Amino acid sequence: MRATLMYGAGDVRVEDVPDPVLREPADAVVRVLRSCVCGSDLWPYGAMPASEQGRRMGHEFLGVVADVGSRVSGLKRGDVVVAPFVWADNTCDFCREGLQTSCRHGGQWGLNGVDGGQGEAVRVPQAQGTLVKLLVGEDSELLPSLLTLSDVLCTGHHGVVTSRVAPGRSVTVIGDGAVGLSAVLAAERLGAERIILMGRHTDRTDLGRDFGATDVVAERGEEGIERVRELTGGDGTHAVVECVGTRQSLETALGVVRDGGVVSRLGVSQYTEVPMGFDTLMRNITLTGGAAPARAYIEELLPDVLDGKIEPGRVFDRTVGLDEVSDGYRAMADRKALKVLIQP
Amino acid sequence: MRATLMYGAGDVRVEDVPDPVLREPADAVVRVLRSCVCGSDLWPYGAMPASEQGRRMGHEFLGVVADVGSRVSGLKRGDVVVAPFVWADNTCDFCREGLQTSCRHGGQWGLNGVDGGQGEAVRVPQAQGTLVKLLVGEDSELLPSLLTLSDVLCTGHHGVVTSRVAPGRSVTVIGDGAVGLSAVLAAERLGAERIILMGRHTDRTDLGRDFGATDVVAERGEEGIERVRELTGGDGTHAVVECVGTRQSLETALGVVRDGGVVSRLGVSQYTEVPMGFDTLMRNITLTGGAAPARAYIEELLPDVLDGKIEPGRVFDRTVGLDEVSDGYRAMADRKALKVLIQP
Repeated sequence: MRATLMYGAGDVRVEDVPDPVLREPADAVVRVLRSCVCGSDLWPYGAMPASEQGRRMGHEFLGVVADVGSRVSGLKRGDVVVAPFVWADNTCDFCREGLQTSCRHGGQWGLNGVDGGQGEAVRVPQAQGTLVKLLVGEDSELLPSLLTLSDVLCTGHHGVVTSRVAPGRSVTVIGDGAVGLSAVLAAERLGAERIILMGRHTDRTDLGRDFGATDVVAERGEEGIERVRELTGGDGTHAVVECVGTRQSLETALGVVRDGGVVSRLGVSQYTEVPMGFDTLMRNITLTGGAAPARAYIEELLPDVLDGKIEPGRVFDRTVGLDEVSDGYRAMADRKALKVLIQP
Repeated sequence: MRATLMYGAGDVRVEDVPDPVLREPADAVVRVLRSCVCGSDLWPYGAMPASEQGRRMGHEFLGVVADVGSRVSGLKRGDVVVAPFVWADNTCDFCREGLQTSCRHGGQWGLNGVDGGQGEAVRVPQAQGTLVKLLVGEDSELLPSLLTLSDVLCTGHHGVVTSRVAPGRSVTVIGDGAVGLSAVLAAERLGAERIILMGRHTDRTDLGRDFGATDVVAERGEEGIERVRELTGGDGTHAVVECVGTRQSLETALGVVRDGGVVSRLGVSQYTEVPMGFDTLMRNITLTGGAAPARAYIEELLPDVLDGKIEPGRVFDRTVGLDEVSDGYRAMADRKALKVLIQP
């Protein structure tokens, strides 16, 4: 089959790789219907050292079950399923607590002999725990929105849940990428009273307004902090969802959060230290969030996607075939595409 | 009256100061029955630059109402009351959320013309919101335990609540000072299944065992982390309450917390940066805690103190008169006393 590999910064290739087959009784094989490029893929795309051994890419996909192992129940060939962005048994203590990202028997796509999602098919370990049936056809118009359950919508939702967004509460979302916009959507869904979106790309922030943002702040750094404070009577917002991952973005988050408030971080951290000394201690600021256990949220979010109540798939503004994946990466890196859908 | 002032590191003096009188209609004047020295007082005691103007000390006290302003209701002369470690109106939005440390009309003892607690009397601003009646006599044997409601017990409780200690959950308490021991007591009170106390002073950790610690770890740093991990099957504990405030203690906290777990920090931060990069992001670690809004917790904890269900006053292992306060500071700084009670 064909699959996407990264060989270094800016070097994404689609190549022939072995067809996936069942190796363990808990495996399934899924033929990919839709996959996509993640904002987090752009970090290695910008900085990965050149390597002779390519790295299999992609951790968001939905597809059709093509084969199931002997110990997989509840799934059969032909089922349309979505995979969360890590695979997990969904039965261990961490999974039962809703932290499938720390599953005792789970792992990441594209590592240790497991396929990535940006290819024609994927061997899925722990298939029964990992895959969620979607009960739609292969040609459903909802596929893009359903694909967001794999990562980006659930990640935005994770930020919103962990930062305790609720009716009557205010939230600042930092970053107008697909995760930030998904966080806006998730905050609106959970009844946030005020949703301030910090971002500078008007095409994106316009979509953010459609998703529920009540205010848009284009300024960054100290200016951005002042602007959010102005909008909130000097206090800042109860919740902040940080969707960038840079030190500056984190500093902004800590600057716009209200005393006693929560900063949830979703952006892949490009920093190693967080400036949380005496001031944040006296103000009782909480820092939370992290890699989203998407699997924990799919059942809750799926009905709203199926009903069309939310349309998270609107974050996809370009669709490419597998052979054009490299163009898709470049378009996202150049900010010419918000999020690229792959149709193998 | 006589009151305690600090003029620099190691330089604590008791001097004559003006008698407190009502200045605002919301004030009360309280004659101090008991006060004490806080672990946080030891930071300036160790490092405060010499100054000609002394700094009024003490933020923990209980006493008898001596006078009340015209706008104070519910309090009268002769009431025995405890003061939380900041004064607050207890009616603003922050106070209603239980964050009296951020009260819009509150402040700290010993600053801006407000007396400190380590003296014979205190003018209490926002008296109605600040003071809590204890319904005991001036000679009650419970006074030491009741005094802990002012700060140290409520602070330990704050760490335990914010780190989500609950039945079935495990907690590591880092630091065997009075706050650490109070956190142990609070964790036991809220039903923690396992309470690991990290500390090296056996007289203190023995009291910690009395308070409910199930395990004591004397090792520090990497060794301490390994030991806690061994005790918890490699996982670490769900909750960690950090009661020291140093960078090393914080690193230990992040090292012993279980994936998805919460570190609550209570120690006055001697660091400005927190090492929470990629690893803690992937593990979904939460950092929370801060200056405890003691006022928010007094009503909940008071009945257990009055009933004798808990004896938090056991953290006091030395009592001094006002003229011996300097000795009290020295004894605590030299680790010869755990916590010093002051009986003016």
